[in-house]
Amino acid sequence: MPDPSPTSVGTLFAIGGAEAKLRRRTVLRAFVAAAGGADARIAVVPTASSLGPEVIEVYRAVFASLGAGEVVALRPESRAEAQDPAVAAPLADVTGVFMTGGNQLKLSAFITGTVFGDAVVAAHQRGAVVGGTSAGASILAEHMIAFGGAGSTPRQRMSQLSVGLGLLRGAVVDQHFAQRNRYGRLLSLVAQSPSLLGIGVDEDTAAVVSDGTRLEVVGRGAVTLVDGRHLVSNAYTAQPTAPLLVSGAALHVLPAGSSFDLTTRTLIGHHTAVADVEVQETRAAEADLRQLAVEIAAEGVSPTNYRRHVRRGQA
Amino acid sequence: MPDPSPTSVGTLFAIGGAEAKLRRRTVLRAFVAAAGGADARIAVVPTASSLGPEVIEVYRAVFASLGAGEVVALRPESRAEAQDPAVAAPLADVTGVFMTGGNQLKLSAFITGTVFGDAVVAAHQRGAVVGGTSAGASILAEHMIAFGGAGSTPRQRMSQLSVGLGLLRGAVVDQHFAQRNRYGRLLSLVAQSPSLLGIGVDEDTAAVVSDGTRLEVVGRGAVTLVDGRHLVSNAYTAQPTAPLLVSGAALHVLPAGSSFDLTTRTLIGHHTAVADVEVQETRAAEADLRQLAVEIAAEGVSPTNYRRHVRRGQA
Repeated sequence: MPDPSPTSVGTLFAIGGAEAKLRRRTVLRAFVAAAGGADARIAVVPTASSLGPEVIEVYRAVFASLGAGEVVALRPESRAEAQDPAVAAPLADVTGVFMTGGNQLKLSAFITGTVFGDAVVAAHQRGAVVGGTSAGASILAEHMIAFGGAGSTPRQRMSQLSVGLGLLRGAVVDQHFAQRNRYGRLLSLVAQSPSLLGIGVDEDTAAVVSDGTRLEVVGRGAVTLVDGRHLVSNAYTAQPTAPLLVSGAALHVLPAGSSFDLTTRTLIGHHTAVADVEVQETRAAEADLRQLAVEIAAEGVSPTNYRRHVRRGQA
Repeated sequence: MPDPSPTSVGTLFAIGGAEAKLRRRTVLRAFVAAAGGADARIAVVPTASSLGPEVIEVYRAVFASLGAGEVVALRPESRAEAQDPAVAAPLADVTGVFMTGGNQLKLSAFITGTVFGDAVVAAHQRGAVVGGTSAGASILAEHMIAFGGAGSTPRQRMSQLSVGLGLLRGAVVDQHFAQRNRYGRLLSLVAQSPSLLGIGVDEDTAAVVSDGTRLEVVGRGAVTLVDGRHLVSNAYTAQPTAPLLVSGAALHVLPAGSSFDLTTRTLIGHHTAVADVEVQETRAAEADLRQLAVEIAAEGVSPTNYRRHVRRGQA
């Protein structure tokens, strides 16, 4: 295993599943760029998937068409394989690790705490980008959501935690968040463990974490954060399946363009794309104003000044 | 119309739809009790429903079987009918008004601001219980959710406000909340109007508001509150269908037994039913402790004291 260099830790991509692989591939494009583009060497880890070579070929093709320099597939399919240094060896010089979707319990069962898992952690520490989609997103956290029921209302025992890779600390990552109605299961975890920040990522959307603390949002949907530090709950005593009390959680729904400080748990900023119609209206209004200014200025001034005003107006 | 008496305003029941009408009818039982039980005179208003006499007969039967003294049906089916004082006249001496589910825009179109609507408001002001389920819950608020899309993520223009009866001020009430995945549409409304408290009511659950400010929860699900007073949003500028930024909303999920102050927007308290297994375990442990105390006390004491200890232990 290479020594972690003194550079900052690599960027994390927690993708909410179903990221676009044709046309507007915003999320995967950002991943390839972060991994180094033409200089990228990306390891695809399809361990969570029940599909075989298909899923590897899909990502190999997408990453190649997005300009990634090299793509290798690494697939430990048991804890024994993940303990084999030969399987983990290629992670020593990758610039990116991408874990596919599937069953995240396969990732925690086969990878967490093995030679392979440690090599992923080491890659992150020396600056490689580590990301994944769906199951591959959940495994990034220290406390991993293993499974749970659907529904907006948090209920006692509706979800389960397991042990993830620990690249993202103090947080739990859920995926397919809007599409599978997962407020309830995320809230139930935060109600039980209010120190955790709940992160719910929509499909075709990524929570991109740089320097271990700055979260930015890329993609079509939103990233929902539930900050439970000040909440009151009855999760230590409620009956199984009963709705849980969760009072005083801070809620943040962040679309693309948002940035959030995970340490202070506050919004850093947001860039909102201005609607096209507004751009057009503003341009039209500016043109009108320029014309008006020109006409006002032209009243009673010399032809030279008038021409100067006209020139400025058209600059 | 009768003069509003100086008594406090009536209790409001905002029911999230699909309340149980057989077996454990917790929500409707609470409504009948609040309306006076055997002394109740309840007006059923099925204006929102597209069903005819069926829906009237259902509620007539349920309320009767729950011990309501009298049930009358009042069904204005146009704004003209709702302006007819004869149609509204029976509201003068009811103790409860119950509006059924259906299309809440029929309620805002036919009732709000009419003689009939004013009579419902007057009934509430003199202390009558006013409630409704689904559409009948939304109409209680001043700002009524008219319709909107499903999904957890708030999006620009995904929902619409209309004008409700105004019995509940500063709040907007959505229903079928967990079952229809309505976080997004409630959040989108609060993002646009952060002064509103968003109230999402699950099915077979009621937000019961007394004295205009104390909210209590009855039924099987939860009532979700989104307090947007301190939120940051881009709702004034985001593009149509784009996910909305909502940062810093306070979230409260309240199961049965919770009470919440709508004025200060803080949790008053919560009563959690203790699990049966814990009750049994505690009783067993208490019995063990009594026995132990008896045995300790019995060591080296007289037979009389020993018998007294045994008797106490078995009390």
